[in-house]
Amino acid sequence: MGPLPRTLELFYDVLSPYSWFGFAVLCRYKNIWNISLQLRPTFIAGIMKDSGNQPPALLPRKAQYLERNDVRLLGQHVQVPVQFPKDFFSVILEKGSLSAMRFLTAVSMEHPEMLEKVSRELWMRVWSRDEDITEPQSILAAAEKAGMPSEQARGLLEKISTPKVKNKLKETTEAACKYGAFGLPITVAHLDNQTHVLFGSDRMELLAHLLGEKWMGPVPPATNARL
Amino acid sequence: MGPLPRTLELFYDVLSPYSWFGFAVLCRYKNIWNISLQLRPTFIAGIMKDSGNQPPALLPRKAQYLERNDVRLLGQHVQVPVQFPKDFFSVILEKGSLSAMRFLTAVSMEHPEMLEKVSRELWMRVWSRDEDITEPQSILAAAEKAGMPSEQARGLLEKISTPKVKNKLKETTEAACKYGAFGLPITVAHLDNQTHVLFGSDRMELLAHLLGEKWMGPVPPATNARL
Repeated sequence: MGPLPRTLELFYDVLSPYSWFGFAVLCRYKNIWNISLQLRPTFIAGIMKDSGNQPPALLPRKAQYLERNDVRLLGQHVQVPVQFPKDFFSVILEKGSLSAMRFLTAVSMEHPEMLEKVSRELWMRVWSRDEDITEPQSILAAAEKAGMPSEQARGLLEKISTPKVKNKLKETTEAACKYGAFGLPITVAHLDNQTHVLFGSDRMELLAHLLGEKWMGPVPPATNARL
Repeated sequence: MGPLPRTLELFYDVLSPYSWFGFAVLCRYKNIWNISLQLRPTFIAGIMKDSGNQPPALLPRKAQYLERNDVRLLGQHVQVPVQFPKDFFSVILEKGSLSAMRFLTAVSMEHPEMLEKVSRELWMRVWSRDEDITEPQSILAAAEKAGMPSEQARGLLEKISTPKVKNKLKETTEAACKYGAFGLPITVAHLDNQTHVLFGSDRMELLAHLLGEKWMGPVPPATNARL
């Protein structure tokens, strides 16, 4: 038996493009590095409220930089087909991600094997094709694209307003806050006797260094480029 | 004759530890990549004022993250001997960097060959040994450590309150603002027909990708680890 894998928790929200970048990179490395990756759907608005932080795009010059430079260039570099939604403020600040993240929470509780794929399809909707992720039919469409049987998806959707699912999302969000989150994604690396918290999608080379694993860029050659 | 080197401008302030990381990495790569690196001493408080941004450490949870996690871990990874000053708020928010950045501006105008070394010694004072960088004798001590003759250093120090030096620092700060800066460092990459603006010290792998150069981590093996 080899050494026990170290655990990485990735706290993410599909409203956050940097969460997508972090998710894409870690999903590529999870079979290369000796790690166990736990995907933790989290509610970003809850993190912002609890920490007193503001979405970066509220500062006009940051919004410009994110849209014209950083998200675009990182999308090319990380090979994720990201596109800014046309009406960014309505999509991100008004419509939000509560139902989508409750749905992913239900997926994580009942069909964890589908969580990666459904998460990816929700990002593809909101952060690539500028499609809604708040209406029931939008969420069902993402689940269908991910390959989930429609009966199963409907069953999960019915559960998103139950206390069990709501509380689970709340607990995960509180856990992220306890780790010191003021935004998403955060990666919490549980190594031998240490826990490291890394904010954002741009500490993956540092993470490799902490793990003693090899960093081969955001698209490691051993895997096919996956979203 | 090989192809003309592409120009990178690094806008930095010694009050910013992330500027130090970016500076350290680019100074290591400047002789490896086909680039011309221009060091541009900038006044971070001017950037914050003009953009309406706030220093990240004003949000308590960010301050905690920066000190306990990010700056410490990046310091190890980038191999820069960074240490948080004990009285962070007094050093960063009250004392600031105006004289130090005016001094570096004078160095860049009259003895540009000394700019890299003097900048590094100022970071060593404020962000490694928790020493003052506002008093004349502090600045002279940094210049001396960098190997500048004391007569020369005194001459430059006398010039920091001249309109020529003050205006030059103002112009550089305004230039950074025109590139969209809301903090430091920013790296402005002038490639064939494109200009890319990269914020922070964590886009260097992306920069390599834009340049078509090889990324070998923050401490490329071809050079000795330099601060």
